[in-house]
Amino acid sequence: MKQFQDEDALVKAIAGRVLPRSRGKLRLGIGDDAALWKPKPGFVSILTSDWFLEGSHFLREKHPPDSVGWKCLARAASDIAAMGGMPRCFLLNLAIPVDATGKWLDGFLGGLRRAARSLDCVLAGGDTTRSKRVLISVIVIGEIREGQEVLRSGGSPGDLLYVSGTLGQAEHGLRLLRKTQRRIKGENDALRKHLYPQPRVALGRWLAERKLATAMMDVSDGLSSDLPRLCTASGVGAVIDPGKLPLLRGIGSDSARELALHGGDDYELLFTVSRRNAARIPAMFRRLRLRRIGELTRGRNVQMSSKNGTRQPLPVSGWDPFR
Amino acid sequence: MKQFQDEDALVKAIAGRVLPRSRGKLRLGIGDDAALWKPKPGFVSILTSDWFLEGSHFLREKHPPDSVGWKCLARAASDIAAMGGMPRCFLLNLAIPVDATGKWLDGFLGGLRRAARSLDCVLAGGDTTRSKRVLISVIVIGEIREGQEVLRSGGSPGDLLYVSGTLGQAEHGLRLLRKTQRRIKGENDALRKHLYPQPRVALGRWLAERKLATAMMDVSDGLSSDLPRLCTASGVGAVIDPGKLPLLRGIGSDSARELALHGGDDYELLFTVSRRNAARIPAMFRRLRLRRIGELTRGRNVQMSSKNGTRQPLPVSGWDPFR
Repeated sequence: MKQFQDEDALVKAIAGRVLPRSRGKLRLGIGDDAALWKPKPGFVSILTSDWFLEGSHFLREKHPPDSVGWKCLARAASDIAAMGGMPRCFLLNLAIPVDATGKWLDGFLGGLRRAARSLDCVLAGGDTTRSKRVLISVIVIGEIREGQEVLRSGGSPGDLLYVSGTLGQAEHGLRLLRKTQRRIKGENDALRKHLYPQPRVALGRWLAERKLATAMMDVSDGLSSDLPRLCTASGVGAVIDPGKLPLLRGIGSDSARELALHGGDDYELLFTVSRRNAARIPAMFRRLRLRRIGELTRGRNVQMSSKNGTRQPLPVSGWDPFR
Repeated sequence: MKQFQDEDALVKAIAGRVLPRSRGKLRLGIGDDAALWKPKPGFVSILTSDWFLEGSHFLREKHPPDSVGWKCLARAASDIAAMGGMPRCFLLNLAIPVDATGKWLDGFLGGLRRAARSLDCVLAGGDTTRSKRVLISVIVIGEIREGQEVLRSGGSPGDLLYVSGTLGQAEHGLRLLRKTQRRIKGENDALRKHLYPQPRVALGRWLAERKLATAMMDVSDGLSSDLPRLCTASGVGAVIDPGKLPLLRGIGSDSARELALHGGDDYELLFTVSRRNAARIPAMFRRLRLRRIGELTRGRNVQMSSKNGTRQPLPVSGWDPFR
């Protein structure tokens, strides 16, 4: 892709590359002052926005540009999945250096287009400008039938705590990436999960439609950072059984446990289910493992159980940009 | 305000400072994975997002922090006004250096809160992270009764072209600011317009409800950049009478004309009206001047008329980050 002479040309190129042929769901997309959007009758809109910044969230020299395009949309869409909703359209605020408007932008838009198609989520607008580093702010608009939304605040003491997939896998992928000298594509599962995470939209929707999850959120900063947020919102504590954590295989069990507790970027769903509904939660949802890892408790402490029956506080050490 | 130890504390402080007491319009705001939003029955949502970056859009050493807070929301809300809609809620993506989390953030949130109250627009969520410079991405969600939205594409040859307020005033304010050595508050009208622009929400709504505007947009990059965009969207040309431009007084007329044609950041409304409705456009809307500056034409050229009856092309030289 050539470099751009002005902003209008850049916007036109983005629209041309990312927009799928069908955009019937949007009343009005790119090219006006703003976009128009209306959820289906009986549905409400879900709004979320995420940063994805060069240097903080990705490295231009290490992360393939199509991973940056995929991931910036996928991780924002994960917040919609965490409410039980369906992503519908998105706005892209993109600030790039002129030297990234050629080949890098081409790769980025390719990854973004793949994510948009995979999620059935249409580009509706945004803003472009120039900057020294690549700055991305993605806004996803989703929808959910009124009353089906699953909040972080709905958990009660005694509810069982579940998580999807494998925890710590993306963090392991990031460590592999850091060790390499060059930019690589996803060559194994962990690296693929770090570069091309899959928001758990189908699972979130399934749990929401059946009203099985009492509280839900996605694990983005790491279990030890995110679980306390769910607990605070629900006014409860939690105890997790470290022996039940869905660990990554093929690495030492201590490392795997450390990664599962504190590793970020997995975008798995963490959800709670009342005891009477526990039998309705399958061990596998499609090809995704669902694992019961603990339960909510009275009080406000987040703890780990140990084999001798004692409980220890769970230290918070997931990802925090201000720590 | 003290500096923050972690992201959760920062989010809590932002919510505490910016949220007004009443937030009844939002189903669910800050503190969950995403926000829930539903427009009134019969209305559709309007979505827009804008960059506001240190170094490009403002200078931390020159612009007062409360102006940064005010303006980042006001300029995004202007896109909602330009569709004829009402701003309702917004998402704030804020990335800041740790050294800006104290006094600077305090001033910023004060200005943001004033803008949110003035526009009756509620903070619904967003994302915070750390960065070397202050990076702001604001998303405004508005609403408009279905079918009342005014697009850029509705103009026809022969429609009359109007603009609100004074053009070039904000650019003049910016030049005053650049000349000073220190950070100053808005001490005159031009500086005030640069620092604390007023989106023309009431005018946009009035024109949309009465179906008086056939096409509309806001003037953000300068008339010479923005008018061609309206013309392209409508498939028309335009001719403007430079003698009719609402010029800034107190500076030379050549400078004032140059500023009016190419100065950015005014956030006035540029709109077109069919000839049969021209009599319904008042010279003043509340305390805001409305000026007829030209008309739409067949063909695709954007021109200026001159006293001897000839027409010259209007050179495009408004603000473009890629030029």
